[in-house]
Amino acid sequence: MQNDPNITLVTPDAPIATQTHGGRAKCLQRLVRLDLPVPKTVALSFESVLDIASGHLPNIEAILKQFPEDALLCVRPSSEDPDWGGPSAVLNIGMSTARFDTLCATLGTDAASSLFTRFVQSYAIHVERLDPDMFDDVKGEGLEALQYVLQAYEIETEASFPGTRSEQLVGVLKSMARAWEGTSARLLRQAKGAPADASLGLIVQQMAFGVGQGESGSGVLQLVSSKTGLPQITGRYLRQSQGRDALLGDTSLYISRDPRGPSFEELVPESFAKLVDYAHLMRKKLREEMQLEFTIESGELHILDGVRVTRSSRAAVRIAVQLALDEIILHQEALMRVDPTALNELLHRQVDRHAKRNVVGTGIAASPGAATGRLVFSANEAQASAARGEDCILVRRETSPEDIRGMHAAKAILTERGGVTSHAAVIGRGIGLPCVVGVSDIRFQTRKSKLVTSDGNVIQAGEIVTVDGTNGVVLLGAPAMQEAALDDAFQTLMDWADEERDIDIRANADTPADAQTARNFSAQGIGLCRTEHMFFEPGRRTVMREMIFAETSNDRRAVLERLLPMQRTDFIQLFNIMQGKPVCIRLFDPPLHEFLPTDRNGQHELADALELPLSDVIRRVEAMAEYNPMLGLRGVRLGITVPEIYDMQARAIFEATIEASRDGEAVVPEIMIPLVSARREVELVKTRVDAIAAAVRIELGADFNYRLGVMVETPRAALRAGDIAQHCSFLSFGTNDLTQMTYGLSRDDAGRFMSDYVRQEVFDEDPFHSLDIDGVGELLQLGALRGREAQPMVTLSMCGEHGGNPESIAFCRAAGFDYVSCSPFRVPAARLAAAQLAISEEIK
Amino acid sequence: MQNDPNITLVTPDAPIATQTHGGRAKCLQRLVRLDLPVPKTVALSFESVLDIASGHLPNIEAILKQFPEDALLCVRPSSEDPDWGGPSAVLNIGMSTARFDTLCATLGTDAASSLFTRFVQSYAIHVERLDPDMFDDVKGEGLEALQYVLQAYEIETEASFPGTRSEQLVGVLKSMARAWEGTSARLLRQAKGAPADASLGLIVQQMAFGVGQGESGSGVLQLVSSKTGLPQITGRYLRQSQGRDALLGDTSLYISRDPRGPSFEELVPESFAKLVDYAHLMRKKLREEMQLEFTIESGELHILDGVRVTRSSRAAVRIAVQLALDEIILHQEALMRVDPTALNELLHRQVDRHAKRNVVGTGIAASPGAATGRLVFSANEAQASAARGEDCILVRRETSPEDIRGMHAAKAILTERGGVTSHAAVIGRGIGLPCVVGVSDIRFQTRKSKLVTSDGNVIQAGEIVTVDGTNGVVLLGAPAMQEAALDDAFQTLMDWADEERDIDIRANADTPADAQTARNFSAQGIGLCRTEHMFFEPGRRTVMREMIFAETSNDRRAVLERLLPMQRTDFIQLFNIMQGKPVCIRLFDPPLHEFLPTDRNGQHELADALELPLSDVIRRVEAMAEYNPMLGLRGVRLGITVPEIYDMQARAIFEATIEASRDGEAVVPEIMIPLVSARREVELVKTRVDAIAAAVRIELGADFNYRLGVMVETPRAALRAGDIAQHCSFLSFGTNDLTQMTYGLSRDDAGRFMSDYVRQEVFDEDPFHSLDIDGVGELLQLGALRGREAQPMVTLSMCGEHGGNPESIAFCRAAGFDYVSCSPFRVPAARLAAAQLAISEEIK
Repeated sequence: MQNDPNITLVTPDAPIATQTHGGRAKCLQRLVRLDLPVPKTVALSFESVLDIASGHLPNIEAILKQFPEDALLCVRPSSEDPDWGGPSAVLNIGMSTARFDTLCATLGTDAASSLFTRFVQSYAIHVERLDPDMFDDVKGEGLEALQYVLQAYEIETEASFPGTRSEQLVGVLKSMARAWEGTSARLLRQAKGAPADASLGLIVQQMAFGVGQGESGSGVLQLVSSKTGLPQITGRYLRQSQGRDALLGDTSLYISRDPRGPSFEELVPESFAKLVDYAHLMRKKLREEMQLEFTIESGELHILDGVRVTRSSRAAVRIAVQLALDEIILHQEALMRVDPTALNELLHRQVDRHAKRNVVGTGIAASPGAATGRLVFSANEAQASAARGEDCILVRRETSPEDIRGMHAAKAILTERGGVTSHAAVIGRGIGLPCVVGVSDIRFQTRKSKLVTSDGNVIQAGEIVTVDGTNGVVLLGAPAMQEAALDDAFQTLMDWADEERDIDIRANADTPADAQTARNFSAQGIGLCRTEHMFFEPGRRTVMREMIFAETSNDRRAVLERLLPMQRTDFIQLFNIMQGKPVCIRLFDPPLHEFLPTDRNGQHELADALELPLSDVIRRVEAMAEYNPMLGLRGVRLGITVPEIYDMQARAIFEATIEASRDGEAVVPEIMIPLVSARREVELVKTRVDAIAAAVRIELGADFNYRLGVMVETPRAALRAGDIAQHCSFLSFGTNDLTQMTYGLSRDDAGRFMSDYVRQEVFDEDPFHSLDIDGVGELLQLGALRGREAQPMVTLSMCGEHGGNPESIAFCRAAGFDYVSCSPFRVPAARLAAAQLAISEEIK
Repeated sequence: MQNDPNITLVTPDAPIATQTHGGRAKCLQRLVRLDLPVPKTVALSFESVLDIASGHLPNIEAILKQFPEDALLCVRPSSEDPDWGGPSAVLNIGMSTARFDTLCATLGTDAASSLFTRFVQSYAIHVERLDPDMFDDVKGEGLEALQYVLQAYEIETEASFPGTRSEQLVGVLKSMARAWEGTSARLLRQAKGAPADASLGLIVQQMAFGVGQGESGSGVLQLVSSKTGLPQITGRYLRQSQGRDALLGDTSLYISRDPRGPSFEELVPESFAKLVDYAHLMRKKLREEMQLEFTIESGELHILDGVRVTRSSRAAVRIAVQLALDEIILHQEALMRVDPTALNELLHRQVDRHAKRNVVGTGIAASPGAATGRLVFSANEAQASAARGEDCILVRRETSPEDIRGMHAAKAILTERGGVTSHAAVIGRGIGLPCVVGVSDIRFQTRKSKLVTSDGNVIQAGEIVTVDGTNGVVLLGAPAMQEAALDDAFQTLMDWADEERDIDIRANADTPADAQTARNFSAQGIGLCRTEHMFFEPGRRTVMREMIFAETSNDRRAVLERLLPMQRTDFIQLFNIMQGKPVCIRLFDPPLHEFLPTDRNGQHELADALELPLSDVIRRVEAMAEYNPMLGLRGVRLGITVPEIYDMQARAIFEATIEASRDGEAVVPEIMIPLVSARREVELVKTRVDAIAAAVRIELGADFNYRLGVMVETPRAALRAGDIAQHCSFLSFGTNDLTQMTYGLSRDDAGRFMSDYVRQEVFDEDPFHSLDIDGVGELLQLGALRGREAQPMVTLSMCGEHGGNPESIAFCRAAGFDYVSCSPFRVPAARLAAAQLAISEEIK
């Protein structure tokens, strides 16, 4: 048998590999090499299990010959990655009436009966596929129970229970091999990332009994907390038990001394000490934090298995960092072991994973984190609630710029409509506010200030609700929460990431608060500052409206003059917070009609404020309405047709630059032109901006530099990037709009059918969530290539919502981009993802 | 002098070319070669005129030496293309007090005075640039007048009138050379298509006097009517006159016998006969229909010049065809001589070019032709008006699908908003309805049913107005019209075009009427049948609304069942009209909310009709509203999420195919999927359509073939054309939407700033009007290349509004497209343009 690599006794030198025999087999071999007391084990390779599934059995006698004739056996799955799961283990194979009698003698009748009963049940359910319900009414205990289940088995199968170890093993191997091929098992493991052709190995191990005379039992032990990753010997032990029963039983002991009750450590201090030694040895040699599965048989310790400690995101960071600090793994390896997207969880409060959840609605997880508060149905109520010091959850059909202050006041946002890049989602992620959008199973009766759930329950304004933006669900009440965890381990990991990565990470930040968050997360600058948000504040919005109603260029200029000092202050704050790091300011982008009221009341107020007839206001609002605002008079088009706005903004930027440079490093602002589709648009804006820079230099008698660039967000700008790059210092790809235009798909309207589309695999993924490499990606590549060809020094970057995704960062890095820019709260994940990419390339 | 090519006596062998001496010089040389009685002429080359303009005079004496010492001379412009214009001719150079005396003797004092007076005036105005007003009060006639103008000249210039022929010639040459360089002259000729560096030649010709003793006078003669191009000797003759005075004077004679008055033919029959002979000779030898300019001096005939007969579009066709039929030119040359866009004029009634025009508004010329009618302000009134048999003009702020029937009922459309590809414009061109959109200088008070012009005049509903869609103007009243001219010459030209061209021309046709127009204009099929128009008819719209409100797939299916027979009839009609020519049917495209009423009244009616609470209707309308309908749930997205519509349409198409194939050629329908952005969309639709085809074949026991294809109108579809082509038979590029998405620019909203943009040269031209070769064009080329590479047999075509433009046809032809499809009324121009492209390539 040692010559058959498909059926191998697990010895230090046996030809066993994770890729051929699975992770459990490999792990057991490592434990054997460490000389741990592992019961005798035979590993069946993927190939041999495939054979079994298609009806070709291995040499059963050769397997059995490896074990003592009277030994009981167990079979456990060994897939390539333990996380992929597999069929349930079957214990106590070899139990039969004859064997039962001898065991009664050695273990006692009760223990022997318990083993046999467990085996019959397990065999009936897993091998014979009988209905588990049939054992619901097992009568009595010990021998009585055994007789009941044996009888039930015989009635149901019309056959007697198989009497030989060989028969039983064949049955178990076949059933486990087939279970792996089942559809639901396949879907389950694919959901966990297994490839379609993932294989199963099996191990056959000699049983160590946790039942019988002397101290007997089983348990698990690990050295750290799964929740925090901090050192804390954790585990449970159950006397007279097998498998992982210790984790279920009410009567389990704590593994180490514990004020809550008796412990394994107190019961058998020598075994405990040994176990802890074993655990430390495994951590060091297996280079991972492991959980030990052990059995004590009549006082003797057996190590049955070791598995990676399950861990929260926070624990994952702590464990990886500590392993590296202990010089067990390299910094690079620690970086590779943490999933970047898991980091997002650390930055926000979360619903505790063990908390009870009363889910009343599901939607799209648009901005991570969770928050609890009273329901409010308008931005005003949200502000009032915040003023009273009450946490609130803002509910809207969808949000618009007018809701911004209410959103800042709320603890979380819930909207009926929208997708991952809807207004609520973008703002939510920007300010770190939990947000669930596109909630389809709740009826939003916003006018009546209530929600109606799918089962007809009504949730009124003022009721306490929790929004879980990480998982996209709405919960009734206030479940237990887990706080954000920006601890020292997190900081250390981030520092290591920065040492490795080779692409810059900036943040999208519209306000001083955003900028501060960006700084806290060590963003290397602001990649996108959307100035229009600054104009939606009530005082400023009124000025904007006056400007819209101004008849002449001079009138517009005069009105905008009043906004100038406010804009200047905005920019001074941003520059000061960013302390000389680059700040890329996008010039005004939205259509002007967004500033006008659409309801009659608002129009009336505006007419009063401007002392105009209502009909004039209505006419202007109607005249400015657009069929497709996304494709209308906005961005640079506005910059060219109403140039006074850009003039004012450029002046504010330059005056702020001089002011902010006075006491510190010289600020070099970056000015970005949105929605460009033709070279000439850039030329026209550049001419005016240059002129204003010259004027400001003379007026204020101070010099400064600045960089002018273009936001590439129309397909045409990408195609003509060669032309455009000749007139600017940087090209920043705005993948939100670029995706919308490449697909001809509005992100605001896509929510309605996107889930349908992804389910039917029309799109592999929502392209607003995951960069469409094939289509949008080609435009990015073309644009980058042509831009660089025309102007080798041009800075290339991506500043859309995609900027924070590891796949997008990989794409940008491969395309030679200088930086990506993402929401401040996604900066840590982006830094880690970038480091992983650099390390992966190094390894290759 | 014969050695100086820049100053050449016009002889049969002189080195004179149009490219060096201008068209007039070359024409005169040809007349000399034909031995016509042309006065002695010297041609000054472009180079010599450039020299004069910069102050370097040619050898004046050498020029003068060519003419008798006492001969008077005239100087006339000779630009490369006579249409580019040039400075006015100056006659009678050499006139002086001395010369005057001798002329008094030979011509009589009156005639000599008249010549001298004319010369002084002309010299004062054109050479000395004096104010023409100074001659307004010329007193007396003959000698008295002469003395007056000479005196006026001397007072104004403070110098005596130049006394020598040489002095005078220098003055004239200098002033004409400089006039050509003037800014307004430059703009004027560039507007006529002259290049920026267009040059001027001059000719110096010996005067033949049209005044004096014996029969003297001047006139013009041509062999055809300028209006119709039909043979008709036309012209005027004025006794005792010079230059082209005959065309101005009230006392001019008709050239040939005419019931309206005395004629040149009757006056001097021999000269008339000679002139006609000359004209025929010129037509034959110059290979063009020419107008002769002649002078009779004391009974002797002189031919001063020949110019291309000016001609209407209709005459241009007739003249070119007749020259070819007379074997004077080749068919190909006849084709090259007609401007394709001019053909559009022939297909519609036009305002007579000589009619008086009372223009009250200007806008964008969106659909050619002109019509007169009473103003109406709603689609309903238009239908009522049509029912009464009254012609009407439909005025709307903008049109929407609900206006379609009203548009069909109206004679022309006038809208306040929109551009060349707005709804009104597209429909207008489709059905050949004159249309002016984007009228900015009229205030539309549609609710009050009136228009207010820029000078405050009010035009009420019911008033008679004329819309001139060819020129983009609105006229008050009913000016004289010219009828459409689809005569035999037009047909002949079209037949010749079809012999030459190598790209197919199809028409966009949505209705049987459109299809009939397409057939009449010999379209080779229907390239785009937009089926949604079929659903906007009131009866069908109600059914669509029911479908929208249906809760389940089965309910939707049941409702659509009622539309099936109507759709089938639509398609049977189309197939029958097209007699086996291909018909490409685009599946349903618009968002469903277009079918729902947006006003409260309509919603109320709908609630009544569907027996639903009003609040349900309002909620549904609100829920279905989209921010950017262009980028929303429409096209194939609807096909996939509400598949019942496409199912019904496919069934209707297939059942119609069987029906229409019964008595004639087998119909092979083409089914086109709109708004595709991913391969999988095509696969999903194809699977269902194939299944329905199979079902219909079995149910009706008849076989048929069909072709399934994709409308490429998102940038992504163009980029992924390789994928997509593998699943379809044809790719048709919809350049309207493709342009919108490539620029990120909605055609409906672009009107507001497009003129600004074109004026500031941000865009060279409106990309919705003229295909954007650099951006959209690259996507077309990429798509075509990738499509063909993946599937060499795939049919490629263009079906956007651009399809009818000569430049677009050139582009498609170069990219290897199989056909272009355009509005039915643009088919003739497209056929001609395609022929010209093939011929041009042949010539190269």
